[in-house]
Amino acid sequence: MRMSEAPVIELPPEVAAEMHSAAEAVDRHLAAYVGGLDAPSALREAVEYALLGGGKRVRPVLAWFSCKAMGAPGERALAAAGAVELIHAFSLVHDDLPAMDDDDLRRGRPTLHIRFGEAMAVLAGDFMLALAFDLLHRPPPVGPPHQLGARLARELSRATGEMISGQVRDTIPETDPALTGLERVVTIHRGKTGALIRAACRMGAMCGLPADAPENEPRLEAITTYAQSVGLMFQIVDDLIDVEHASEHTGKRTRKDAPAGKLTYPGLVGVEASREEIERLRSAGVQALRRVGEPARALESVAGYLASRTR
Amino acid sequence: MRMSEAPVIELPPEVAAEMHSAAEAVDRHLAAYVGGLDAPSALREAVEYALLGGGKRVRPVLAWFSCKAMGAPGERALAAAGAVELIHAFSLVHDDLPAMDDDDLRRGRPTLHIRFGEAMAVLAGDFMLALAFDLLHRPPPVGPPHQLGARLARELSRATGEMISGQVRDTIPETDPALTGLERVVTIHRGKTGALIRAACRMGAMCGLPADAPENEPRLEAITTYAQSVGLMFQIVDDLIDVEHASEHTGKRTRKDAPAGKLTYPGLVGVEASREEIERLRSAGVQALRRVGEPARALESVAGYLASRTR
Repeated sequence: MRMSEAPVIELPPEVAAEMHSAAEAVDRHLAAYVGGLDAPSALREAVEYALLGGGKRVRPVLAWFSCKAMGAPGERALAAAGAVELIHAFSLVHDDLPAMDDDDLRRGRPTLHIRFGEAMAVLAGDFMLALAFDLLHRPPPVGPPHQLGARLARELSRATGEMISGQVRDTIPETDPALTGLERVVTIHRGKTGALIRAACRMGAMCGLPADAPENEPRLEAITTYAQSVGLMFQIVDDLIDVEHASEHTGKRTRKDAPAGKLTYPGLVGVEASREEIERLRSAGVQALRRVGEPARALESVAGYLASRTR
Repeated sequence: MRMSEAPVIELPPEVAAEMHSAAEAVDRHLAAYVGGLDAPSALREAVEYALLGGGKRVRPVLAWFSCKAMGAPGERALAAAGAVELIHAFSLVHDDLPAMDDDDLRRGRPTLHIRFGEAMAVLAGDFMLALAFDLLHRPPPVGPPHQLGARLARELSRATGEMISGQVRDTIPETDPALTGLERVVTIHRGKTGALIRAACRMGAMCGLPADAPENEPRLEAITTYAQSVGLMFQIVDDLIDVEHASEHTGKRTRKDAPAGKLTYPGLVGVEASREEIERLRSAGVQALRRVGEPARALESVAGYLASRTR
């Protein structure tokens, strides 16, 4: 059974349109920010190549809609969304390095180290990591709403550490000898992918809440539960796409994880059980949003879209 | 004429003792912080190898004494000092990578990628970069005094960006075609080395000042001027050491910059003129401290020590 036979959850046209415009708004925000940096032009060019060369902008879109779910305009989450995307972009550039996954193609284009050389790929990745925190500490409107910078940075630095820990667990198989295969793959996925998706949603929600909203604000907790489900789901979908689709379709080499001996969810439990888990996680995420109510309706649709995407 | 013939500025014994105890206090602070992280043990081990394996702790010491120069106890700067050292340690690990300087020895030990593999060196470097910002956003006493986190993080993220920009200028010679050789080497040194030393001093001073001290606080400005002089001076001294000393003495390969075609200050103006510039910068730095008065006396001694060090 192929992904394309899976039930496709229709995205309401107004949500689709807003996803598109949110992604564009974040791209513009990032382009203006990077364009204004006092940095060598070669470095700026490499960052723009990595950061503004397409991509689904899943994390920025989640930050935007999580902010709106709190009843605030999505624009309030622009800096948070941009910072999360900078971390995501940095991680891709370093993951693609010869010492790591050794990928030469991403989104149908040469990876950064192929295009600009390996030294620049190391440095541009480092630079984007630092820029994420620079952006969070800029004054508005480039940076986030007043008084939120430290809180957002705390969230993002923690998630970045978890993401890198996940990458270590994935790269160095003997890291967690006590775990079963499935425990390991879930731990890796929650780190490598889930942590940053959780940060995107939580940071977006924080931008939409009063600056002094407590950590146990019920809607923030609901968004956190949603994000944890959707984050793991997102990576299982990614695994499935990698298993089932050909290189022309995704613009990157596929089935690359299996020969490298990396664990994947469908590799351990099969395609059918992976599908069921995706649906279970989507449903759990949507369930959590009940406590937020109507303004979170778009996040429900986004979960459905992410569950049924085929690339 | 060899470095050892240069006039050695005596470090008052009480300053030497406090440098030593400040370095130890920062090491303990970092060791406790890293030891408490929820991260894979292999990753923590790599970070400890890079972070706690010796080194002069120049930046933490400068942060400590800059805090004391404001009339506050040096302990108030521990988190700031640790964050700066995390950035420094990350930059060394990535600089040593095969794609960069390709060094296999540092401080007399195998570099991190030799010891733990190249993938771990990329990841541990990334991790330390993220940890610097995590540390700055922890609550006290692990993190900095209340309300200072955002201000310190802004300072550190900017300096990290400048440091990486300097590294790009150094690695990719065609970055600044309009500059003369000497302008280029000064620009590179101010970025690669000066920016983080400036951040160390300014962050230390910020920890010693009231949280709402204005940006143009005269003593903060004085420390900034001091740091800018000492930062450039420090790297010229480093260049001289690299030119003049043998590998046994410094614990890393020397003269490595010349064959790689990298610009050095003595390579452009000679050893004698480099010495004169070191003395001029030391004196300018000390001059700036006059506005701070007696509590800055130790920073004067540190400048002298850094000017005359031979390793």
